[in-house]
This record gives sequence, structure tokens and C-alpha cells, in this order.
Amino acid sequence: MTWCYIGTLCHTPTLGTLELLNDHALLVDDNGFITGVYDADDDAVEDFRLTHPDSVTVFLPSHFLLPTFVDLHLHAPQYTYLGTGLHLPLMQWLDEFAYKSEEMLDADPALARTVYSTLARRLIEYGTGAALLFGTIKEETNIILADVFQNAGLRACVGKLQMDISSRPTYVEPSTQASIAAARSFITRCRALVADLPPHARLVQPVITPRFVPTCSDELLTALGELAAETGVMVQSHLAEAHDQVKWVQATRRKDDMDVFDEAHCTFLTHDELRRMAAYGSKVAHCPLSNAYFSAEPFPLREALELGVEVGLGSDCAGGYTLDIMNAMRHTVAMSRTREGRRTMQRERNAAHPRVTPLSVDWKDALYLATRGGSVALGLASGVFAVGAPFDAQCIQVTDDEGRGVGALDFFVPVPDQLDEATLEKWWCLGDQRNRTGMWVQGKKLL
Amino acid sequence: MTWCYIGTLCHTPTLGTLELLNDHALLVDDNGFITGVYDADDDAVEDFRLTHPDSVTVFLPSHFLLPTFVDLHLHAPQYTYLGTGLHLPLMQWLDEFAYKSEEMLDADPALARTVYSTLARRLIEYGTGAALLFGTIKEETNIILADVFQNAGLRACVGKLQMDISSRPTYVEPSTQASIAAARSFITRCRALVADLPPHARLVQPVITPRFVPTCSDELLTALGELAAETGVMVQSHLAEAHDQVKWVQATRRKDDMDVFDEAHCTFLTHDELRRMAAYGSKVAHCPLSNAYFSAEPFPLREALELGVEVGLGSDCAGGYTLDIMNAMRHTVAMSRTREGRRTMQRERNAAHPRVTPLSVDWKDALYLATRGGSVALGLASGVFAVGAPFDAQCIQVTDDEGRGVGALDFFVPVPDQLDEATLEKWWCLGDQRNRTGMWVQGKKLL
Repeated sequence: MTWCYIGTLCHTPTLGTLELLNDHALLVDDNGFITGVYDADDDAVEDFRLTHPDSVTVFLPSHFLLPTFVDLHLHAPQYTYLGTGLHLPLMQWLDEFAYKSEEMLDADPALARTVYSTLARRLIEYGTGAALLFGTIKEETNIILADVFQNAGLRACVGKLQMDISSRPTYVEPSTQASIAAARSFITRCRALVADLPPHARLVQPVITPRFVPTCSDELLTALGELAAETGVMVQSHLAEAHDQVKWVQATRRKDDMDVFDEAHCTFLTHDELRRMAAYGSKVAHCPLSNAYFSAEPFPLREALELGVEVGLGSDCAGGYTLDIMNAMRHTVAMSRTREGRRTMQRERNAAHPRVTPLSVDWKDALYLATRGGSVALGLASGVFAVGAPFDAQCIQVTDDEGRGVGALDFFVPVPDQLDEATLEKWWCLGDQRNRTGMWVQGKKLL
Repeated sequence: MTWCYIGTLCHTPTLGTLELLNDHALLVDDNGFITGVYDADDDAVEDFRLTHPDSVTVFLPSHFLLPTFVDLHLHAPQYTYLGTGLHLPLMQWLDEFAYKSEEMLDADPALARTVYSTLARRLIEYGTGAALLFGTIKEETNIILADVFQNAGLRACVGKLQMDISSRPTYVEPSTQASIAAARSFITRCRALVADLPPHARLVQPVITPRFVPTCSDELLTALGELAAETGVMVQSHLAEAHDQVKWVQATRRKDDMDVFDEAHCTFLTHDELRRMAAYGSKVAHCPLSNAYFSAEPFPLREALELGVEVGLGSDCAGGYTLDIMNAMRHTVAMSRTREGRRTMQRERNAAHPRVTPLSVDWKDALYLATRGGSVALGLASGVFAVGAPFDAQCIQVTDDEGRGVGALDFFVPVPDQLDEATLEKWWCLGDQRNRTGMWVQGKKLL
């Protein structure tokens, strides 16, 4: 069985490239992979329409298809208290809010299932089709998380937290050895959860997740590195996020985060450290909202991109107060323009700032980071409309049948028959859930 | 006739003070003024409920009343292209988008009425009860703007733009004398529009509005100053907003904006200039989103507040891409925390930064700026629930009848019977139009 979707496609195959393809068609096989990208009037599409009229979906020019968003950094158990307690410095906030919430879910599997199911439903509303998740320390709770996301039809990399050291005595793994054993066991069980499914239907996978340097002994970090090499499982963590965290690591280990290991935030990295990350193939989850709250330094986004570091966006729930990756895109641009302003002024005042090209990114760059950038960082083939890629898409409606804007969008001069970049930019600035009328992951309709 | 509203009240009478008054009652007279603020079980309330049962509205504990938002800086004609064209530097953006849109409305009164009516409806959806507006240069179009807002039931200070100099030959007033005459005529006509109404029902007023230094001759600025003194009309403008604008003024006038006159943005002000503003009684519209886009420097918010400068928030439509003052509040906090991070790092690196106290503001401070701060800046009695203040309020619902969160809000532990600060903060972070179930200005229900 093959399906055909006809309408306007919008994607960002590479950083700096926005393709707006009006009157195009995608053919999608029964496994959810794109098998053809055509002009709508191509003979192949005409033939398909004649032979399979019931498998064709035609979107009006007031709609467009966009790859789903990828959330590269989300603490699933922290969804319980999203949007509260943001007044504290990071290390104190962790103890009073984050650890406490994680501990609560580890103690109550039914509550964990409720929270994770609500989270998955909300992600679908926000157009997020894949997420790199931090879970909790208890193996069983992370299996619940993986199970919920697999059943919700969302891609998820699930990270059982490793924490053999903790500032909160009630929330810590019993020993280094127990932590290592649980990491191995979780990988086996998470993989077993989807082992009977065909490869394309396996939406969840385990990720080795040392929380961050302050909560992991050197012995644990070494063992987890070996486990990653042995199992081929990706590793995620926090790197050089907040000033108080970086200072703590320097004080206790006499070295920087970067020298302990090499992933999310990375706001305190030097040019050389970014270069090392690029060479190692490390990826960065840029979380501009939580950075504004918890990092004294903004992430050097443009510099990282220029050095070839693979970057995507993260909500950082609950350090960031919304799951909406559109919010992360908007803060990414605003933050980058603030950095660019600072560069301009520094150059003007003392000519000491060596850089001559702008540090800012625009909405198209942000769209790349939110879609293809995140997919590339996770090693996924999604985030682009191309043959062989899975059909992971969201449908956005900008005007209704009478040409009136949908949601917060208003138009006063006639909207062109063919969607244009100005209308896309308006959606980027003002769009919300009201504009999202459909979503698919691996060809399956979730919304 | 008197009305009684019973439920939870939330307001910020002063900067740094959040009052959350559960089980309270407001009495509101037929002119829309608050005549009493009571505990709900006060005898006066009991008496009123017995004698006027049909005039009582009781809100469930899942709702709260908050003063309406004030938007201190909004270019009404630029609503036509909100959320487009934000890639250009300010002076170029003005010519390619702003001036062009204003010119279009000045040429088409019917379109102007449509745009302004849509704008007014959207502001009500966003909870904005009062706005300080920039219009266009044509007198008649500004009368339409005033008329639309008066009829919509919204408070508006309407500014006919003064521009006897312009970089766009097709969008400029014919002469300095014509500009001065039109300013005077607009004040007379705008006042005449509401002269037959009782004072409390006069929702619109004129504001003298030299666009900014680059578009006004010294002769015009002098004459407008005299007109302000003669008529008692407030003056609004842009001051020290963007780097390219400031440089232009310095190059052409050989002095700073501040030395030419003294209002919105003010991102390029020194400590001494802020002190002068405080002494002059000048007010600032802080527009964090458009500042991130167009100002190379962030506004020194905390410093201005400490010096006693009256500050409110502005959307700066269309330099900012949304009318939602909740967005302005969120960017205000994020921007202030970014500045605080920079201060922390500067102090650590070279101890050259003299300041020891934080530059950040929190969500409660932002709520003050968005409500009472804006009202104070406009000389309005609104923005607070107090005897003598007009009943300008919005009703926010956080949970539904089954205790489920409304809109983007989710709760996993029971929400307390009495609204608490944690729930308010969650709304502040995540709330949107779906949470807004009512709005009143001067006692009249608009939503």
C-alpha cells in the first residue's frame, strides 16, 4: 500500500536553505518511508491518482507540510512541575524541584505513566515527533517512559539517569556498581521492548545518560564509556551548562566539564573546546530559554555551527518552561541577535572584538535547527522530505476557507495563491497549536 | 446600580509586591469604579448579596481576576504586516515595511478601519485594556483609530505621527507649519470625539507624537513642546532605540537623542541620562522583543527602576512580532537574567563591574510592569484593585470543573483549594488566550 500527499512542502535540507515547494507530491509506502518527491503534475502522480484515488490526500494551498520538530533535551519527569520554581540558581533548583519530582515518579509507577502519557500527548500538539529524554534513576520508570512513547507513536531516545553521587541523600543510586549494572540492564530491556517489531517500527531506543559530572564518579563515567563502546548506544549528558555547576566541577575535580567527558547546553565552552567537540562528533542541544535563566553565558551558537558542531534545539523541560519548540526557535533568534548587538558595540567601542561577521541566526536557520538539525544530531533520517526518509511531518494551516488567518494570524492584503516566505515568517512568529491540523511519524497519523 | 464580583484577586500594587487575595469581593458602581474591596465574608458583602442577588458574580477558586495589561508602545498601522520582514536593520526596515504600511492606510480609510478594528479585537483577546498608540501622519486616519478604540471599549492614547522630514519622499508631511497645524487640529478633534461623554466614559485621548528625532526638524520639535505645554497633552516618541538611529542623530545633529528631547526603548542611555529622565518624570516603554531584534544594547531595566523611572511594557508591534503582553513579560525576565549573567561573569573575570546587586527581575516584577507599571506611566488610576480605581480586569481560569488544567497547563498533584503562587507562576509561564474567560474596562464587559 502506498499513500500520496499533495500540497505545499516546506523544509530546510541544510542550514541556510529553505525550500518552499508549492504543488508537490510525496509518495509514502506502507512502512512510512517516502518513496518519491514529485511535482504534483508529474506523470507518476497522475498515474497514482487514477489508480489509487482513495490513498490520496490533497492539502489546500492554505496549508503546508513541514518536518516534525525534534526536542533534543527534555527531562520527562520534570513535566510535573513545568512552569514553577524558576527563581533559584541551578544547583539549588535541582534539589528543591528536579530531584524531588524525579524521586516522586520513581516511587509511584502509576503516576509516572500518567505524567509520561500527558507529556506525549502535549508533544504531539506541539508538533514534536522525536525527543531525546532524560528519565529518572529507577530502571522500571524508564521502561514505562519508553513504553508510553512507543505506544504514542513518538520517536524517543530514553535515558535512564546515572547518579552514584548526589547532593540529595534520598535520590541517589545505591552504589557505583549498582549504577553500572542498572545501565546495562536498562539497555537490554529497552531494546527488548521493541525487538519483536520490524526495524522501522522501533521508535524508542536507550541512551546512556550520566546526569552530569557533579553526580557521577570518575569510576562510573569510565564504565559508562566502556558500555557505550560495547553496546553502540549513544551517550547524552549536560556539559558546561551553568556557572555554579562549572565552578563546582572545577573545585571538586580540578578540571573542566570538557576534560571529564563530552553534551547539552555547553554555554561555557571556549573556541578550542567547541573545535574538540566538532572533531569528536559531539552534538549540542541548544536550550535558549533555560540558558537565559540558568546560564550566565549564552551558548556560542554561530561559532559552533561554523566549526561544524551538529546542533539542535531543546525545550529543557522544566529548566525551560514550555515544551513548544516554536518557543525555542524564537528565543534562539532573539538571543543570537542580542549577542550580535553586543559584538557590534564591542567592536565600535574598543575594536578588541576580532569577529567581523554577524553572530545572529534568522528564523530560517532556527527552523533548520528545530527540524533537520535535531534529526541529524540524533542520527535519524527524518527532518527532510527526501526519498528514503520516514514521513515525519506536521501540517500547518495559515488561512481558513474564507482566506482569514487561523489562530493569531491576520492578513489584510490578499494572501497569494501560492504560499510565500512572508506568510511562512508570519506563521513562524505568531503560529501556535491552532495552526497545526495534522502530524505523522513514520507515516502514521498521530493528530 | 452596583455590581459585586466575588473570587480570587491578584494584583501588584507596587514593584516587588504581589497580593493574592482569595475569597475577596469587589463592589463596582455603575460608572465602572471600584467602591469597595472586602473579604468575601464581610457584612457589607453579605448585605449586598441579600439585597442585590442578581448583581453578584461569583468566580470559582479555579479563576482569578487580574488588572488588564497595558501596552505602552504599539504602532497601530503596522499591524498589517505583524510577523514579517524582521531581517532588516531599523532604518531600512522603516522604509521597506513601516512607512509603506502607514502610507497604505492613510490612502485607504476603509482599510484603516478594518485593520484598527481587528487590532482592537485582538488586544481584547490578549487581555490588553489600554494602549499608547502610534498612528500615521494623516489626521483623519488617526480619528478613525480613536473612534474604533472608543467604540471597542478600550483605553487608548492616540498619537498622530509628526514627520516633517522623512527618508521616504512619498511619506512625509508637506511642511513644518502644516505638521504643527495638523497636530493642533488632531488634538481638538480627538477631544471633541468624546466631549459629549461623561469623563469616566472618555476612553481615548490624543498624544503629541514626534515620531523620533530623525524625522522631526528642530523647529517642529520646539513647536510641539509649546503645544504640549499649552494643551496639557502628553508627548510620546522613540528615544535612543537602535544603534543605527543613534548614530544618524549624532551625525546630523551633533548631539544625542536625549539632548534633543526626552520616550520608548531607551536602550542607549547612560546612568546620568536615566537620572535625568527620572527627574523630568519621563516614562519608558520597555519593549524587550523588538530590542533584541533592533537594539544593539539591552535596556538597563533594573537600573532605571532603581532610579525611579516609571516603566511599563510595550509590544512594539510590528518591531515586535506579537501583541501579547505575556510575551513581553516573558522576554523581560529572560533578557534581565541574561544581563545578570553577564554582570556575574564580568565581575568574576576582572572585577571591573562595579555593581554588586542582581540586574534581574522575576515574573512578579514583570507582572507589575505589565499592569500597574503601565497604568502609572500613562497617569491612569487602573492597574490595581483599590477603591476609586476603575474596574479594568481580566479573568483567568487555571483549571476546569474536573480540576484539569486549562490550555497548556497540566497538574499532577491536586491543585490547592485556594489559588497559590506556584499555580500563578505556572499560568505566567504557560498561559495563553485559552485561559482568559473575561475582560472588563471601566466596568464594561468586553470579553
